[in-house]
Amino acid sequence: MSETSATYDPLDLARRLMACPSITPATGAVFDTLEAMLAPLGFAVERFVEGDAPDGPVENLLAVRANGPGPHFAFAGHLDVVPPGSGWASDPFVPHVRGDLLHGRGAVDMKGSIACFVAAVARQSALPGTISLLITGDEEGPAVHGTVALMARMAERGVVPDLCLVGEPTSVNRLGDMVKIGRRGSVNMWITVAGSQGHVAYPHLADNPIPRLIRILAAIEAITLDAGTDWFQPSNIEITDITVGNPATNVIPAQASARLSIRFNDRHSGTSLVARIRAIVEREDGATLDAKISGEPFLTPPGAFSTLISDAIDAATGIRPELSTTGGTSDARFLSRLCPVVEFGLCNATMHKLDEAVALADLAVLTTIYADILDRVLHASSTEEAAGPKRAI
Amino acid sequence: MSETSATYDPLDLARRLMACPSITPATGAVFDTLEAMLAPLGFAVERFVEGDAPDGPVENLLAVRANGPGPHFAFAGHLDVVPPGSGWASDPFVPHVRGDLLHGRGAVDMKGSIACFVAAVARQSALPGTISLLITGDEEGPAVHGTVALMARMAERGVVPDLCLVGEPTSVNRLGDMVKIGRRGSVNMWITVAGSQGHVAYPHLADNPIPRLIRILAAIEAITLDAGTDWFQPSNIEITDITVGNPATNVIPAQASARLSIRFNDRHSGTSLVARIRAIVEREDGATLDAKISGEPFLTPPGAFSTLISDAIDAATGIRPELSTTGGTSDARFLSRLCPVVEFGLCNATMHKLDEAVALADLAVLTTIYADILDRVLHASSTEEAAGPKRAI
Ligand SMILES: [Zn+2]
Ligand SMILES: [Zn+2]
Repeated sequence: MSETSATYDPLDLARRLMACPSITPATGAVFDTLEAMLAPLGFAVERFVEGDAPDGPVENLLAVRANGPGPHFAFAGHLDVVPPGSGWASDPFVPHVRGDLLHGRGAVDMKGSIACFVAAVARQSALPGTISLLITGDEEGPAVHGTVALMARMAERGVVPDLCLVGEPTSVNRLGDMVKIGRRGSVNMWITVAGSQGHVAYPHLADNPIPRLIRILAAIEAITLDAGTDWFQPSNIEITDITVGNPATNVIPAQASARLSIRFNDRHSGTSLVARIRAIVEREDGATLDAKISGEPFLTPPGAFSTLISDAIDAATGIRPELSTTGGTSDARFLSRLCPVVEFGLCNATMHKLDEAVALADLAVLTTIYADILDRVLHASSTEEAAGPKRAI
Repeated sequence: MSETSATYDPLDLARRLMACPSITPATGAVFDTLEAMLAPLGFAVERFVEGDAPDGPVENLLAVRANGPGPHFAFAGHLDVVPPGSGWASDPFVPHVRGDLLHGRGAVDMKGSIACFVAAVARQSALPGTISLLITGDEEGPAVHGTVALMARMAERGVVPDLCLVGEPTSVNRLGDMVKIGRRGSVNMWITVAGSQGHVAYPHLADNPIPRLIRILAAIEAITLDAGTDWFQPSNIEITDITVGNPATNVIPAQASARLSIRFNDRHSGTSLVARIRAIVEREDGATLDAKISGEPFLTPPGAFSTLISDAIDAATGIRPELSTTGGTSDARFLSRLCPVVEFGLCNATMHKLDEAVALADLAVLTTIYADILDRVLHASSTEEAAGPKRAI
């Protein structure tokens, strides 16, 4: 343990970050606070702000500490938080310990986890190799000027990590019970069918778009995308809305529309799904499709990196984590283009909810796990005695 | 032609009725005006008001003139009008002659036609038999306290017509080109499917009602009710609305609903159609059906009555009318329970529209036709010289 680690208590670091209101998109004070923590640890910190309202301005922070030859290990996360809403037991931006819990917006998603990683780095100041932090102010929002912009800046500077750990709250019931080795992709689609309005007593003078929309939706419902893979659950299509908006019982409407949400595994791409649905839609007169791909799926196949993380979790908690690909999307969908990515962080039960809170014990244990991961990745790669499985990254 | 007919000019009568605002449901002045026309012609006039807001109050008028033995001929109609809306070239309740047209709300639907029938009766004051007028103040509205209430009153008094002419505006391009010998029935249905809300990333924790609604609607769309009959066009099902109301792209909705409108011929009843759709709906979990039957179909099969009316039209105009069952519903759907019913009246091009208007010439010719119909029904039945086809009613 280094001499600086005594002043890098994860609870204290978490409180300092959580005390900065940073509803997405975030800039300013919360980044000042993080920079003030990283600079004494030897990081070169670069910050930049991009975008305009409403998607921005978004601040991003790239911190790199190079300590001679060795792998480049990146930790990715976000300092923005979802709006707290009203009804909290205490001010969401005044971090508050009650009993065994630290309450406040961002406690688990994910200022607490960033605090644990900073504290872990403080404990491992002597490790060789490169450590970086890729921190955005827009993960919870449209994410247009967030991690994607950060990756563009990294590309300009030639910063390329070998491994990336994303600190999202992946634990479910106990810290360490789940890590994410992939995420499904996500695409939303909007189907619109145009017809011609008229009176129900004279249907030959009108053109009801609803029967065509029903044929389209029935054909979509008949699709089985896949049966799942070793690592992914089956891809899933949900029809989430249908809108006609015709209040008059005796009127045939002029338009009908529907919206789909598809969460899909790595047997598909957003582009291939849009093409497949478009072919169904365009069989019908007056029917058009719009689509927005929120994220492509990614998978870091189980292997040395996930085993290393599982071992570190096991050592601190006695739990072998489930390697999962469930849940929503995260910025790991972007980062997976750079290198193997695994996500592991705090318990997600209170994320995005009122009275978000983290167990004080979890902050301590997660710091230990993150420090152990750093050691296993960086120390092992530079020492003779760490031969064997730990090198197979 | 009787001595009173000179003071019973149809244009003058129409103007007097149209000068009384009588937006549905109607009471009062417009009925006073009609009663003042009928009393001098020897009618016993009974008026009564029923119902409360918003469906009422509704005034109804039953006028009967019995002149010895002979058939009972009834004329049915309504003094209420649909709201005029704004944008008229002149006040909709200040009848106004411009060129060859009389403008004002109710000109063709159907104060003009009531005026023509009153003028026709004035010309035929010597005819034997019974003439009655069944006039309601609510045909355009919910029709709960209108013709149905009038028929209940007639039943109490033992007033039973042998034939009924409804004066709705059935003519399309030229006065006399169409009479209605039937109308399709009408029923609206509301389908609701209940599910359970959830997040699209966790479909196993939710229950999307939309796929079940689509199966129901696809099954309904697959129905062919019939191919039409000699006198009716095919029955028709229109899905007129679908509502989910889910603005969130990542949420599986808790409920989905749809609305149907079925216009059906005499191969079906409203009740049989509700049962048939209900059986489809109730195959799906959480799916329920509500229905409102607006009217059952009716048909007065072509025969002596429609031929007599066609002959009278032909004599005045040279046109053989088309015997039709197209269009919306009318109070004929109720009156058809009493006796054979045929509908014939003015041109419907401007009904329910801005600047509703009737051709002055049409008022004169329709009066002649109505007078001829009275003569053919009543005079023929009481004179030796009128043997033959005219008696075959
Ligand atoms: Zn997060
Ligand atoms: Zn009418």
